[in-house]
Amino acid sequence: MPQSFTTALVQMSMSADKTENLRKASAEIERAADSGAHLVCLPEMFMTPYFCQREDSALFDLAEEFPNSETITTLRAVAKKTKTVVIAPIFERRAAGVYHNSAGIIDADGEIAGFYRKMHIPDDPAFYEKYYFAPGDLGFKAFDTKVGRIATLICWDQWYPEGARLAALHGATILFYPTAIGWHPDEKERYGAAQHDAWRTVQRGHAIANGVYVAACNRTGLETDPKTASKLEFWGQSFICDPQGVMLSEASSSKEEIITADVDTRHLETIRRNWPFLRDRRIDAYSEITQRFLA
Amino acid sequence: MPQSFTTALVQMSMSADKTENLRKASAEIERAADSGAHLVCLPEMFMTPYFCQREDSALFDLAEEFPNSETITTLRAVAKKTKTVVIAPIFERRAAGVYHNSAGIIDADGEIAGFYRKMHIPDDPAFYEKYYFAPGDLGFKAFDTKVGRIATLICWDQWYPEGARLAALHGATILFYPTAIGWHPDEKERYGAAQHDAWRTVQRGHAIANGVYVAACNRTGLETDPKTASKLEFWGQSFICDPQGVMLSEASSSKEEIITADVDTRHLETIRRNWPFLRDRRIDAYSEITQRFLA
Repeated sequence: MPQSFTTALVQMSMSADKTENLRKASAEIERAADSGAHLVCLPEMFMTPYFCQREDSALFDLAEEFPNSETITTLRAVAKKTKTVVIAPIFERRAAGVYHNSAGIIDADGEIAGFYRKMHIPDDPAFYEKYYFAPGDLGFKAFDTKVGRIATLICWDQWYPEGARLAALHGATILFYPTAIGWHPDEKERYGAAQHDAWRTVQRGHAIANGVYVAACNRTGLETDPKTASKLEFWGQSFICDPQGVMLSEASSSKEEIITADVDTRHLETIRRNWPFLRDRRIDAYSEITQRFLA
Repeated sequence: MPQSFTTALVQMSMSADKTENLRKASAEIERAADSGAHLVCLPEMFMTPYFCQREDSALFDLAEEFPNSETITTLRAVAKKTKTVVIAPIFERRAAGVYHNSAGIIDADGEIAGFYRKMHIPDDPAFYEKYYFAPGDLGFKAFDTKVGRIATLICWDQWYPEGARLAALHGATILFYPTAIGWHPDEKERYGAAQHDAWRTVQRGHAIANGVYVAACNRTGLETDPKTASKLEFWGQSFICDPQGVMLSEASSSKEEIITADVDTRHLETIRRNWPFLRDRRIDAYSEITQRFLA
């Protein structure tokens, strides 16, 4: 296992053409690998526009099975060819009427190293995810890959300290958050800066509290729902921070770009020795975490 | 119960003279109340210098009983006179050989509204707290006062999402963190900015994840241990942020000062409606939080 590796995030925008999205993602993985990346993460549901802007049963057609889909087959070949670990978020069809928002972890030899189903499902105006996705039932896990033990969670999970904690306790050195988060255009001027800052801050908080690297890979671009004219401006700003929450790399809000940073287990070890939070957890006193509310 | 109230934090430095520290704290509470504060929080163990820079059994003499001590009796009278809620951190002597790092919550009529014993106990060079303090056994709670339901945790607790979560689930609108955190002078130049930023960020993260106000009240000033010459520069920078992590007020690093902000339950309600994180917690999937590690 390497003591350090280079991770890359592909911040991209999506067209309505799945073939084109897959071609672009594959090309970006190759480009990242050519630049030295050992692991590449794609944004949440990179194969499609963010279709959850409206509730429409026809859109379940966009889903695919795991791992027997063109997306995963193609990315396995790319992973093997480039010798990179790939985090591949998909809209998963598990059975008739059972769909998930998921991510495959493809190892650097093209084998499947792990699979995650989004545990926390949002539902807000233009983010109608509870209509499309059953909550994940695989729990919060970490997976062994050629670059070490890593974890992925997905988007809305990023607001939940419990998910980050459990993935870290499973031994992950880095938590990935493939994401599709953006502004409602009519809210952006008034609330946009605070919304983005909260998103960035809570995830840096997970890095600090757990002594892990955190990487959030967002989409970018304005997407307009073709039927409702609802619009979302995905805010980009993908980032990678270290186990003390220090920003290592951060993308722009509106450009497609690849950002990279090195994940160094020696640095993680140093931070955890100096900030030994995991030592002092009061595991005898946390059981009420499994309650909805306590008042 | 008021829909909003003004909270004040007293950022101060401490002398070796307990009488003087109590006089100063009392005067600052009166000054804050005169300026409109309805609740005043003091720093962790405001009655003494931060004595944990060395392990010395003679220093247990600094402890006092709760609530029958001069400190608490005096502050109850101040709370009643000024009609303010007071958060009064003390070094608690519970029995021979059983000491805690604690805080009394004194209601605006002078009655005791609650009591908290620090749950997470640190131990780092010059912060030898595991020698002095038994871990708290009262759990993470919230307390009803004349200004509403509030919670206090203490210092090292601020690095633990579990403590913040449980206090919030108990219905607190604001989490207080009386604190004694500072730089080792020989580390400050190289690591100081990142250390302070991590401290600030993880607590803002608690505010965001839980939709609660957070207030951290730190001491300031350089303290030199009279026997070992060990030094700590307490970094001040007490702050109050809103339920979206937005900074409402922040003190300097080196001055004694009072900062204030308004806690508005209507604003909290709005933030939680727009960011409904508490709705989507996966309480069926968090039980492993009570494990030390999972790998």
